[in-house]
Amino acid sequence: MNVDGKPYRTIRPLGDGRSVEVIDQTRLPHEFAVRKLSSAREAASAISNMVVRGAPLIGATAAYGICLGLRDDPADAGLEAVCRMMLATRPTGANLSWAVRRMRTAVLPLPEGERAAAAWRLAAAICEEDVQTNLLIGEHGLKLLTDLRKQARDSGRVNILTHCNAGWLATVDWGTALAPVYMAHDAGIPVHVWVDETRPRNQGASLTAWELMQHGVPHTVIVDSASGHLMQRGLVDCCLTGTDRTTARGDVCNKIGTYLKALAARDNGVPFYVALPGSSIDWAITDALRDIPIEERPGREVSFISGRTIEGSLETVMVTPADSPVANYAFDVTPSSLVTAFITERGVCAASGPALAGLYRERSDTESHGGCSNT
Amino acid sequence: MNVDGKPYRTIRPLGDGRSVEVIDQTRLPHEFAVRKLSSAREAASAISNMVVRGAPLIGATAAYGICLGLRDDPADAGLEAVCRMMLATRPTGANLSWAVRRMRTAVLPLPEGERAAAAWRLAAAICEEDVQTNLLIGEHGLKLLTDLRKQARDSGRVNILTHCNAGWLATVDWGTALAPVYMAHDAGIPVHVWVDETRPRNQGASLTAWELMQHGVPHTVIVDSASGHLMQRGLVDCCLTGTDRTTARGDVCNKIGTYLKALAARDNGVPFYVALPGSSIDWAITDALRDIPIEERPGREVSFISGRTIEGSLETVMVTPADSPVANYAFDVTPSSLVTAFITERGVCAASGPALAGLYRERSDTESHGGCSNT
Repeated sequence: MNVDGKPYRTIRPLGDGRSVEVIDQTRLPHEFAVRKLSSAREAASAISNMVVRGAPLIGATAAYGICLGLRDDPADAGLEAVCRMMLATRPTGANLSWAVRRMRTAVLPLPEGERAAAAWRLAAAICEEDVQTNLLIGEHGLKLLTDLRKQARDSGRVNILTHCNAGWLATVDWGTALAPVYMAHDAGIPVHVWVDETRPRNQGASLTAWELMQHGVPHTVIVDSASGHLMQRGLVDCCLTGTDRTTARGDVCNKIGTYLKALAARDNGVPFYVALPGSSIDWAITDALRDIPIEERPGREVSFISGRTIEGSLETVMVTPADSPVANYAFDVTPSSLVTAFITERGVCAASGPALAGLYRERSDTESHGGCSNT
Repeated sequence: MNVDGKPYRTIRPLGDGRSVEVIDQTRLPHEFAVRKLSSAREAASAISNMVVRGAPLIGATAAYGICLGLRDDPADAGLEAVCRMMLATRPTGANLSWAVRRMRTAVLPLPEGERAAAAWRLAAAICEEDVQTNLLIGEHGLKLLTDLRKQARDSGRVNILTHCNAGWLATVDWGTALAPVYMAHDAGIPVHVWVDETRPRNQGASLTAWELMQHGVPHTVIVDSASGHLMQRGLVDCCLTGTDRTTARGDVCNKIGTYLKALAARDNGVPFYVALPGSSIDWAITDALRDIPIEERPGREVSFISGRTIEGSLETVMVTPADSPVANYAFDVTPSSLVTAFITERGVCAASGPALAGLYRERSDTESHGGCSNT
């Protein structure tokens, strides 16, 4: 998508076979900066420190991290070491382990001399697939937004409420939940996005608002608590979020607070859509509340907030009493009964086990990804 | 309640007939400071600038502001002028207009020479009544918490989730929603409070956490989005909030986000209690969504966050993109159907018109307060 009118992707190889460039997401929205990653260690660090985040982008970065590692050591031991290094960055991420597994499986049978080149090709293919998947999600979601426009209450404007960042910054390009929004906007449908700030890490206020602004999509930032009020007043035509992990029965594990939006949507007759690539479905898990471990992150993400001072420097401030305990659960589970429909790269379907199985017949083999990754 | 082990009230006359002392709530939780108010103008400014906040405390401060004004000009014109000055500070507040009306009605018939002394007595009485009302709310609520302890899932500990600040800092002492909590804690019942940070002004993180900490009540600060997850996991035994305005039918207008807690409580079978003095009931309003105007506050309350830097100074940082629009709705409406019971100074009752009318029979006369005050 566009940054200052120029098209960007979140990650790209620099073509020299020895480096990739990523957008430094820790500086947004206050500063747009790219960062060059020249070793596997730098790629791992970029994931750990959330220079890059978002499940699909973490997977893509790990793939390129393996390319960078193979340059130094293409032997089996080197490959295994770099795979381990990537997996250790955000150990519970679904797309991370998926990408690492895919890279390792493709590279391991090859002669050492061919490994690096093959790895660069596969990493590029993983990125390209991500973009294509998101474009398909966008096209299927566009139909829903087009239909909503016909019923829109706010003088033809379609008001979409989203939570966290499932935009192009969370992927290689286009995003999952925001792909339909960008397509609708580009098609001339008047869309407006209510952007939940998404405490504690403020991915909504700092990333979603920024990328919508860059692409010229009308939006308004709100606190996470405001969504119910907006729906009560008829100011939301649909909710549209991503998902970090979806069970075989259609329950959705996503950023903390998603469940509350879904409750308010049901109470006010507002459709609640979840956009997802098939790769986010965990076919082995049926009981999300019982079986998906919810990541607890450091309390300081709640106690401390970073932003830009009036003088323009980046500063971090503490907002709680110094000695007050803080808990920081990163995800919650939205039961499938609260989800109106899934928007996937294969089409729109009900949030149910049979509907998902119908769309992904070949996935009947059991896949499990462990814990829930942070995005 | 206690600050550093010493009992405090949020406001007190200094006994010299010319000044009152308040706690400066804009400095909390990072700094405890009292401020002396020596004129009506200083009292008005303390309300406007939220040095004091919380509907009951605003009313008490306005009462003392009138005392300070009468010292300078006890004539009718002076009385009317100071009443107008107070009403203009937070023009839509229920307790503010109630306190000003009460002061004016009592003072106006008196000879000029007796007005100031009578005003000081009445202001003190208003404060004392507030404390007594809250003590009664505390006693009635204590019974509910005692019952909950018998069913508590978390090894006998009663987990209470609260939103915003309805503690002693919002009143003269004890608070509304927190009065039962303090009483339970003092009675040896093991309570633990989940403190919603309450964006955008962070009254939970900065005031509720601070006052609970000062009194030694176990608590944990969470982001507003975490409540649903906690309830899904059985970690909340009840929700307990205040209310800024309650309709004759029992709908509750309170801090933005209260409605989402109530939805999650219903979905998980968690009791949702609202603590309120009878003075917060607006007997003239039956349709809360239609008739209570919801205050929209400046967007910069969302975009900018204040806190303490690592060096110890207070600093304000911007967290949104500079050009992103922001909306800031201060309140929402929780329908009575989501409220398990009201805890009032006259006892516990159902959240319904007949139950409220039964408890407050003499209030059958129509009272309306206009808009919803910010706390």
